[in-house]
Parts: sequence; structure tokens; C-alpha cells
Amino acid sequence: MTTERQLTHIDDEGRLRMVDVSEKDSTERIARARARMRLSEPTLAAVLDGKVPKGNVFEAARLAGIMGAKRTWELIPLCHPIRLTAVAIDFHVDRSAGMILIEAEVKTCDRTGVEMEALMAVTQAGLTIYDMCKAMDREMCIGDIELTFKSGGRSGTYSRA
Amino acid sequence: MTTERQLTHIDDEGRLRMVDVSEKDSTERIARARARMRLSEPTLAAVLDGKVPKGNVFEAARLAGIMGAKRTWELIPLCHPIRLTAVAIDFHVDRSAGMILIEAEVKTCDRTGVEMEALMAVTQAGLTIYDMCKAMDREMCIGDIELTFKSGGRSGTYSRA
Amino acid sequence: MTTERQLTHIDDEGRLRMVDVSEKDSTERIARARARMRLSEPTLAAVLDGKVPKGNVFEAARLAGIMGAKRTWELIPLCHPIRLTAVAIDFHVDRSAGMILIEAEVKTCDRTGVEMEALMAVTQAGLTIYDMCKAMDREMCIGDIELTFKSGGRSGTYSRA
Amino acid sequence: MTTERQLTHIDDEGRLRMVDVSEKDSTERIARARARMRLSEPTLAAVLDGKVPKGNVFEAARLAGIMGAKRTWELIPLCHPIRLTAVAIDFHVDRSAGMILIEAEVKTCDRTGVEMEALMAVTQAGLTIYDMCKAMDREMCIGDIELTFKSGGRSGTYSRA
Amino acid sequence: MTTERQLTHIDDEGRLRMVDVSEKDSTERIARARARMRLSEPTLAAVLDGKVPKGNVFEAARLAGIMGAKRTWELIPLCHPIRLTAVAIDFHVDRSAGMILIEAEVKTCDRTGVEMEALMAVTQAGLTIYDMCKAMDREMCIGDIELTFKSGGRSGTYSRA
Amino acid sequence: MTTERQLTHIDDEGRLRMVDVSEKDSTERIARARARMRLSEPTLAAVLDGKVPKGNVFEAARLAGIMGAKRTWELIPLCHPIRLTAVAIDFHVDRSAGMILIEAEVKTCDRTGVEMEALMAVTQAGLTIYDMCKAMDREMCIGDIELTFKSGGRSGTYSRA
Repeated sequence: MTTERQLTHIDDEGRLRMVDVSEKDSTERIARARARMRLSEPTLAAVLDGKVPKGNVFEAARLAGIMGAKRTWELIPLCHPIRLTAVAIDFHVDRSAGMILIEAEVKTCDRTGVEMEALMAVTQAGLTIYDMCKAMDREMCIGDIELTFKSGGRSGTYSRA
Repeated sequence: MTTERQLTHIDDEGRLRMVDVSEKDSTERIARARARMRLSEPTLAAVLDGKVPKGNVFEAARLAGIMGAKRTWELIPLCHPIRLTAVAIDFHVDRSAGMILIEAEVKTCDRTGVEMEALMAVTQAGLTIYDMCKAMDREMCIGDIELTFKSGGRSGTYSRA
Repeated sequence: MTTERQLTHIDDEGRLRMVDVSEKDSTERIARARARMRLSEPTLAAVLDGKVPKGNVFEAARLAGIMGAKRTWELIPLCHPIRLTAVAIDFHVDRSAGMILIEAEVKTCDRTGVEMEALMAVTQAGLTIYDMCKAMDREMCIGDIELTFKSGGRSGTYSRA
Repeated sequence: MTTERQLTHIDDEGRLRMVDVSEKDSTERIARARARMRLSEPTLAAVLDGKVPKGNVFEAARLAGIMGAKRTWELIPLCHPIRLTAVAIDFHVDRSAGMILIEAEVKTCDRTGVEMEALMAVTQAGLTIYDMCKAMDREMCIGDIELTFKSGGRSGTYSRA
Repeated sequence: MTTERQLTHIDDEGRLRMVDVSEKDSTERIARARARMRLSEPTLAAVLDGKVPKGNVFEAARLAGIMGAKRTWELIPLCHPIRLTAVAIDFHVDRSAGMILIEAEVKTCDRTGVEMEALMAVTQAGLTIYDMCKAMDREMCIGDIELTFKSGGRSGTYSRA
Repeated sequence: MTTERQLTHIDDEGRLRMVDVSEKDSTERIARARARMRLSEPTLAAVLDGKVPKGNVFEAARLAGIMGAKRTWELIPLCHPIRLTAVAIDFHVDRSAGMILIEAEVKTCDRTGVEMEALMAVTQAGLTIYDMCKAMDREMCIGDIELTFKSGGRSGTYSRA
């Protein structure tokens, strides 16, 4: 049998871990994120006019964003499992520019923030729009995925300039 | 770059959202639900006599009901992720009538109720019975899926008449 | 060390197993299922008139049914993982009777059928309608969950009378 | 009992569905996607020098991208479940510009393509980098998420100009 | 904009990837694995006599093993998603020695083997036994988790000596 | 309609249930577990020297252990869903003996302990090492999976002798 002394410890530095949040307070935390999606003008017209063969794009994207936000901890390896208390997703469009602005707000009352959940919400919503329109348009692009606001927790409130 | 003024907001009414429960209190919440399953008399006899080739039907259905209840928030799009503190599933049978009554009780201590979790438990249990018996009987029917009781939360206690 | 002779085998009969379908042919298989949901007349009116605060009920229920069908093998313990090639969900309503008829059709090309996937689709759709309306109506009931058609595989075609 | 004649069909147009791919051939299909991530120069330096407290950023992001790609069908509502036969993720950096280029290649042999899986891979990799660095830098931005190549299937080969 | 020339490639060697199995043939593949679990004599007696308060230990462990095997590709990062065509789990006990031998057999017809699925099955079964008995016995130990047989694929048949 | 009196209750004893923890206090709970993995000397050398073709073994195993711990409640049928506040995984090796010692520590602040989560973490880490090395070595063995410490909750602190 190997004794403790013969063992060599692996990877003292740089090793992956899920940060210990045991000592943090459970407080209300809010995060908002956004993404901008570029589509061709005819593709966006089909979305807005309900002509996408796979169905109602905005409703599917909303649900996918909400459901994706809830599963952030499963997909982002070091995220803590937390209980979301609210998720809302909003779309704004500039039809002539072929642009959809996706915004999400996520809330929790827990020991860690929901920045990743808000980013996940806008990302999954964007990918769902992409999926529904990809037969029409392969040049679509999802970009500008950013955190726009967070509050709660030790690091306080942040608003993107 | 598109400026805020040029954007059109999509879907002010009727849009899907996960209701904000941040302001609700974490309290003990209980829900009970039931389902009634109709099987042919020989099928139910096989279930009761342990003659179903796929194995022990009630034990599989119980586990499927418990495991399904825990995953309600993944499957029902607008359900909040909550931590269940208890799940129990019960079966009663009327052999001559070819009927299995499935009952579930679910508890949590959280900001929202567990009605959907109790309904999910009886439904997944019923579908598992169906799956195990479907090679013998394609006329089975799951019905009368109903909430029978809930307590906790602002809306108080409810008992089905 | 224990030798083979000293071991007692557990549960020769009645043990749970996932049926071996290795020898079956990969063929096209279709299944259809239905459920009937009872709602109060005002609740169904709110659904049809787009007045449910959580959002568009039919779109959410469709997506939940489709997504639930894909995950049948995760939730029903002895189902085989299979690749669905099509899922469609349909709603019919009888407004004065307070009834929603939910129908699903699922297809695959695999070694086993998709009956459970079709039943899962109608069930998850029904539970999602329930979830979205439960603040208005606790007397809703999901019933008559049945297989209506299947084709493909050794057991041939089945149509509910 | 409601008869068929009394029923009103809901949502003939625009309803969500999972496209029927039963008639498509199972052929080898490849897709490649990319994303560009902007980080502050000190954040990227910490990533490259192994100084991020949560651990090895590129290894975590690779795994998250691979694991996310496999679960695309669970998260994107209308994607078909398919069996990936290969996933690879690559990173290139421009240290002075604070930019990480994320590229993914996904393969399958199935009835539908893997464009969404490749896009999911780069997105989940990017979000994982974001998660690991967010305590240092809240101004990070993930953008330019695009399909760069696809082959296989009826629509043939596509290469982004 | 960064040009290709300015980019530095990260991690040419040692990077994580999901091995490309596109060129492998879809053939029948079988794997068997085992684990040995040590329990105190009174704990094993409670298991065998049906006196464990959480319920029927072997049935729960069988189902957990089967369900875990199906989800191997979600949990083991570089495993390919494959469709299992059969999973069976067997238990043998040596009551006086306080030992449960757990065996699993898994089959598929795919481009890669099911060794990990068989190992996952015995492991999840063992952990479930542990969970159900842990209030009685904290000294339990799961060991000797090994592949005992595999067939199919380019590397041919293997049987543990 | 069947009346209550005609119904027979199934399985009064021995039925599976998720234990009711509603009355337990939410307190900090810690658990530690370990596993020992045996590899051939050349296989362990390849792991330590970064020569395993699938990539960095320890980083993949760490992530798999962390991600598996978070999903314990999905896989172990009667485990409660809980929110982990910390997960860390450590490796020690004895190169000449061909042994990797895997240790995990998991924390939560909840109504039930995290013993299963710690055991799951070491198990999934071990299986991931197995998966990455199995092309080189089929004789690997994972063993000695044990709880080494727990604190918190009514049953107090436990340390393996």
C-alpha cells in the first residue's frame, strides 16, 4: 500500500476549482446582458412578418433563453447551481439595418451573482433565432454579447457606460 | 450603429416570461396530485403478479415519478428551479376495474409552490407504467390528472372537493 | 477474496432491464398520441384571447412538447435513446366545452418505436398549459392520454378504433 | 363528448415544429464556426500566463465547448438529436489587441447538419472564458459568432467569404 | 482588425478533443464491467431483508445504473453520444463477507464502443446502494471497478483474465 | 367510478421514497471522499508527461468531477437537489506504483449533506481518467471509493479512521 509520503501532489497552481461561496451572504442579485444579431433584410422581414417556416421566432427564442438561463450551471463548468427567481427577455429590432437587439434580465436571491445566467439567456435566444432562420440566411452574425448591469453582492453595482 | 431611437420593441403584450418571485417569502409548501390509469384486466394482473417482462412496474414507476419531479423546472419552460425537500408516490389499485390510482406528495421550502412537481410526479409514474406494459396492451389510458391539495404561499390552502 | 461459488444471484425474475433491440431493424417508425385537457370556460377564453399573464400558451406548450419528446429516454427509465426525425404538435379547442385536444406525431428511423415519445409530447404540452393557467384555475384536468396510431417495426400498424 | 366537428384548429400558420428529416440521407456532415472575444490586455495576459484564480482557462473552455456541442439538441428547441462523431476547438490569440479567436469543427454522419453544434461549441467556450475571467474584467465582449464552413447534405458546401 | 498573421495558436499539443470516429464502421459492440461493494454484515442483511428505510435497494440501483449508462456521454467529457440498444445489470452477494458484486452488460450498434457506459452502469448502481444505506453505514467502500469484456470494433475482443 | 373502499394499497413497506428533510435546518455541510485508481506504469507515465492523445487528463478529470458533483441529484434517484457552494478536486500520484489518489471536497449550506456529491466527484474524475487512457490500457481499476470526512447536520462530524 502506498503511504502518504510517497505521493506527489499534482498541479498546485492553476488547477480548476469551483470557487467557495459558503461565506457569502444570500442577497438579491440582478444582472442584465445583451446581444446584437445581424440578419439580412429579407430574413428579418420574414421573422417580423411571421413567414419563417419553422414558426414563431421570437416566442421560441424567448423560451430558449429562459430555459437556457436555468441550465447555466450545467453547461458552464465552474458556475454554481442557483435558483433563479425571475428571467425576462426582450427584443428590439431595426428593420432597415437588419438588426435584433436581445436583452435579458435575471434575478436570484443567493450567494453568487447571475451575470452568466443573463449572458446565457441572450446567447441561447440568439442561437435559436439563428437556428430558425439558417435555411434562409447563412451570413447571420451574433455579436456584442456583453454584461450591461449587475447589482447585489460584495462587488456592488455595475452599469456599462 | 443603430441608436436606441430607431429600435422597435417586439411583443409588449403576451410575451413569455418567468414570473418574478423575488419578493415572495420562502415558506414550506406542499402539493398533492393524482392520476388514474386504465389497463385491461390481464395487463393489471401481470403488473400485480410480477409477470411484466421488463421488471417490477411499481418500483420503476415510483423512481421515475420521483426523478421526474426533481426535473420539472427543466421541462416545464416557465417553472422556477426549486429544491424539493420530499417526494413520495403511492399506488392504489382496483384489480377488477383495471384501474391504478397514482398519488404524489411533494414538499419544498421556497418562494414558489410545487403543484407542477406533484403533477409531473404522477405523470411520469403513469408514463413509466405505460412504457413497461405497452407490449401487452395498447389501449391503456392515463387520465384524471389533477391537483388535489396545496398549502403554503400567499394563495393559501386548496383542497379539491 | 470471495469466489464465484459463494455468491448468491439476486432477483432472477422480475428484475428491471432495458430490452435488447440489437437484432431489430432500423426502419421508419411513426407514432401519434393525444390528450384532452379540461379548463373552465373563462380560463380557456383567456388562453384563446392571449390574456394569460405568463404569455402565449400554445407556443410555449408546443415547444415544451417538442423538447420533452426529445428527452423521453432520459425520463422514462427503460426507454432507449433514439434520434427523432420529426415532432409536430397540434391543438384543437372546443371553446364552449372548455376543452383543448392535444395531438402529437413523432417520427424516427431506428430500432424501436416512438410511442412513448408521442405520449411524452402531449403530456408535457398539457402540463405546460396547466402551469401557465394555474394562477387562474386550479380545477383543470388532463385526461384521455392515449396512443392513437403507430406504424413500423415488427408489430405492424395500429390505429385506435 | 366533444365531436370532431365542433373543434377549432389552432394556429394553422406560424406554428413551431421540428422539421421532418425522415426522407433525408444519412451522410457525413461537417460544420465550422468561430467567435471573437475581446478582453482587456491585463485579463488576456492573466489567461495566457496561467494566473487566473479559477484555473486553466483554455482547457476549461475547450471542454465546455465540446460538452455544450453534444447538448445542442437539448437547448436549441427545434434542433434534432444527432450523434456527433468529432468535436475540436481551437484558440488563437492576439495578445496586444486583447483578442481570442475561438474556432470549432464538428462532424456527424446523420440526416441533418451540425451548424448549430459548431456555433454552440464556440459560444459555450466563449462564455466559459468569460466566467473564469469575470472577477477581473466586466467589459469583456463576445462577438462575431458566425458559421465559416459547412459541407454535406442537399444544400452542399458553403464557405464564408 | 486582427489579421491571421498576428494570431498565436494556443496549445498545439495536449489539447482536449473528442476523437474523430467518422471513419469507423457502425458495428455491434458489447461491453461488460463489474464493481465490488463492501458493506458491514448488518447493512447487507438490511438490504437483503428489505429493511432499508429508503426502499428496495436493488431495484433502485438497477434503474440508476441503466439510466446512468444512457447519460454517459453527458458526464464523461470526451465520450461520444451513442444509442444504447441494451443495458442489463446483475447483482450477486456474499452475505457473510458483506460483499455485493455488481455486473453490467451494455450493447450498441455504433462507431465506438460502450466500455464507459458499462463502467458508468456499475458505478451509478454502486453509488445508489451507497446512498440508500449511508444512514446505517459510513464505512462502505466501492472498489474493483473494472472492464471484464468487450467485443466489436477494430481492436477486437478483450476478456479480463 | 371506483370508490376509495375498493382500492388496494400497493407496497406499504419497502417502497422507494425521497426522505423528507423539510424539518432539518439549513446548515453548512462539508464532505470529503477519495478513490484510488490503478494504472500500468507506462499509462501513468503518459498521463504525467502529457502524452495522452485525448489531451490533458487531470484538467479534464477535475472538470468532470466538478460537473458530475453538481448533477448528483439527477443521477442518484433519491438524492435531494441541493446547491453546492464549493467543489475542489485533488490528485496525488505514486508514479512507481501506478496509482492516482483522487480526493474531493464538497460544501453546501442546505438541509441535507453532500456525501454523495463528494463520492460522485471522485467517481466521475476517475471514470474520465479511465476514458482518456483506455486506448492504452484496459487493465485499469478504480477502487477504494470511500467517504473520508463529513461535518454538519444532526449526525455530526465523521472522520474515517
